[in-house]
Amino acid sequence: MSESLSQEQIHAAITAMGKNARQAAYGLATLSSEQKNTILRAMAKELRAQAAVIVAANAQDLTHAQEKGLSTAMIDRLRLDEARIEAIASGIDQVATLHDPCGEILTEVKRPNGMHIRQVRVPIGVIGIIYESRPNVTSDAAVLCLKSGNATILRGGSEAIHSNRAIAAALQQGGESAGLPAHAIQLVPFTDRESVVALAQMDRYLDLIIPRGGKGLIETVVSLARMPVIKHYDGICHTYIDQDADPAMAIRVSVNAKAQKPGVCNALETLLVHEAIAPSLMPSLAAAFRDKNVELRGCEKTRALLPDVIPATEEDWSTEYLDYILSIKIVASLDEAIEHINHYGSHHTDCIITDDDNAAQTFLTHIDSACVFHNVSSRLADGEEFGFGAEIGISTDKIHARGPMALRELTTYQYRVTGDGVIK
Amino acid sequence: MSESLSQEQIHAAITAMGKNARQAAYGLATLSSEQKNTILRAMAKELRAQAAVIVAANAQDLTHAQEKGLSTAMIDRLRLDEARIEAIASGIDQVATLHDPCGEILTEVKRPNGMHIRQVRVPIGVIGIIYESRPNVTSDAAVLCLKSGNATILRGGSEAIHSNRAIAAALQQGGESAGLPAHAIQLVPFTDRESVVALAQMDRYLDLIIPRGGKGLIETVVSLARMPVIKHYDGICHTYIDQDADPAMAIRVSVNAKAQKPGVCNALETLLVHEAIAPSLMPSLAAAFRDKNVELRGCEKTRALLPDVIPATEEDWSTEYLDYILSIKIVASLDEAIEHINHYGSHHTDCIITDDDNAAQTFLTHIDSACVFHNVSSRLADGEEFGFGAEIGISTDKIHARGPMALRELTTYQYRVTGDGVIK
Repeated sequence: MSESLSQEQIHAAITAMGKNARQAAYGLATLSSEQKNTILRAMAKELRAQAAVIVAANAQDLTHAQEKGLSTAMIDRLRLDEARIEAIASGIDQVATLHDPCGEILTEVKRPNGMHIRQVRVPIGVIGIIYESRPNVTSDAAVLCLKSGNATILRGGSEAIHSNRAIAAALQQGGESAGLPAHAIQLVPFTDRESVVALAQMDRYLDLIIPRGGKGLIETVVSLARMPVIKHYDGICHTYIDQDADPAMAIRVSVNAKAQKPGVCNALETLLVHEAIAPSLMPSLAAAFRDKNVELRGCEKTRALLPDVIPATEEDWSTEYLDYILSIKIVASLDEAIEHINHYGSHHTDCIITDDDNAAQTFLTHIDSACVFHNVSSRLADGEEFGFGAEIGISTDKIHARGPMALRELTTYQYRVTGDGVIK
Repeated sequence: MSESLSQEQIHAAITAMGKNARQAAYGLATLSSEQKNTILRAMAKELRAQAAVIVAANAQDLTHAQEKGLSTAMIDRLRLDEARIEAIASGIDQVATLHDPCGEILTEVKRPNGMHIRQVRVPIGVIGIIYESRPNVTSDAAVLCLKSGNATILRGGSEAIHSNRAIAAALQQGGESAGLPAHAIQLVPFTDRESVVALAQMDRYLDLIIPRGGKGLIETVVSLARMPVIKHYDGICHTYIDQDADPAMAIRVSVNAKAQKPGVCNALETLLVHEAIAPSLMPSLAAAFRDKNVELRGCEKTRALLPDVIPATEEDWSTEYLDYILSIKIVASLDEAIEHINHYGSHHTDCIITDDDNAAQTFLTHIDSACVFHNVSSRLADGEEFGFGAEIGISTDKIHARGPMALRELTTYQYRVTGDGVIK
């Protein structure tokens, strides 16, 4: 269907969506929390009611995926059944129970000239979400944006287009029956690359773009976008075992960080070990990792202690394995650990294991990462674990939102000032 | 000098500056407030000591400006004398007295699993400032970034290059004598356009770019930049006089907003008047503006009441005059005023004059602007007036910083989490 659209038609269609989204955003910004929660529950209800329709649409995507020869893992990520649709719907009900950050007063001050200044949390406006295969993102992203008072324009990948359309239609129908402004949630109905270009150029109507997907997608959006982009890049997370670490804790926490779920961005990728503790710790540490089937790649000093470890190359220090592989480097000092992490890391989550509070303090204040942990597994860097209720991702950016990004990070603020005829 | 540099040489030079700035930023992030204040006072002292050197460098820029035939106003903006250098130095001493936002704890929570989470305010890192003619920006921007713990790369315009070099040298020498890390403040020593390209592409080392200057400059940076840009676009500010406005206050506040200093971004550009109050108010309102030599351009309804007003065109509604010119539109309702402002405004600062608190509340919550004022002149939208001490500009963006932007807005945060071996 989309093959027949010209570039001009795509840009015109996206511009019309942007204009409508801006209008919807003005309506959304004035809804009460209770109104938004009623809308969310109606969306969940409609999603459940349309489960069979969504499963049928998903079957079309699965057929195409098999024809295109996608991997089993990718096809599994794409698949929707009644249970997965129920999980999406429960997620919406859960968001309805979360605290609405809009309207919070961040600062309040009375000035000598009588100005009463309130800095009030308000929605951002219109948020573009550009994502790849997983159809649940259609609901997850739209729902968090809605709860925080924002309109969304969703642009999913071609693999899931039928599923995405069915989910978006259910959300729109359910929501609009309960007062959702028209065009508050819109799905780009085609998947041409030109639609990404059109979104990225539309800074008049889009206040923010959040790309959800691989490096290639993020890279494309970053190079095209005229508006702010909040990026969720790699997690090359480190754990540094200090000379004063408790050996049992060091093993327990670092094995958890690596092996509890290796395929995620907050999993451990490189272990740094102080040379003073390495000789006594390494044999049992290596055994614990090998018990979990983790392949070890080490520096020369590591291999001097553990000759059967594979040699690590320069590339290993900047690799996000997302797998049962760990690189290990022995360092001469806390300073060397800090320099290594700031140089090779992705500024996501980095941990120190130590009983020395001074060393911990130095680590926490010198590491330039979104999350810095002392005696805590990097797997805990997560919006749910932080108590945010739900997250839209973990930002590796520094501007606006850093680390786990939830409802609060989907808002901005406005200065509301009252007075009695104050002039300059 | 710069004519002889190739594109590759420019990119290599900028990359080296970026790498050095990142290293300096790590050092800056760990300085105490007292250390930073000592450095700032040493910078102010050295600037005063080198006043004659700076004036001599400035004379070169003035000679070139005259040869190039720059306007008298532009030449005046470029000129430095002992008094202006003293004002810059006093500005630095003033910044030393301001509260340092770094290290503030924004949120703190203890989780059931024992994680103690602190969200701590930290510097952003490396900030690029790209600016045009006024040499005082070299000091003002560098000093605010330094106080908030950031390294800066400054890229000024060609008109002021000799002045900028002299100011930057004085700041560096004074600062480094008091412990400023090397490369914490760097000035790009050439003014080729390619240096802007190189900065805008260097997302590895630059965390943020702030362009300070006209629309053309901001536009160039926005279209090139791979990292976040905080923009300070136009102020097309409105005042809406509601049907329940006090006439004397309406005249006093709107005349102040327009005429107290028309050439700045928070000055009034379009006045909206409710049709119920227009017949009684317009004659005295028009007289008050004409007393201040303000040219009036009105809609048809305005001209029906005041036939000698110049007809306003469609273009007037989206024009930032920065001059003694005002466009006036009579509206049928509060809703029409809100729609006009959200459509034609630049989302900077918009005001309502009314004694009706419900109307005021509707205005404040429906206008999508950084600052929304009730019975306050838009000229008060300013970091100093808000009590921030100093500002780097007024952001018309929504992401990270909105409205008056000062030290707090030059910081980000980091999650510092401690525990006793917490695993997932």
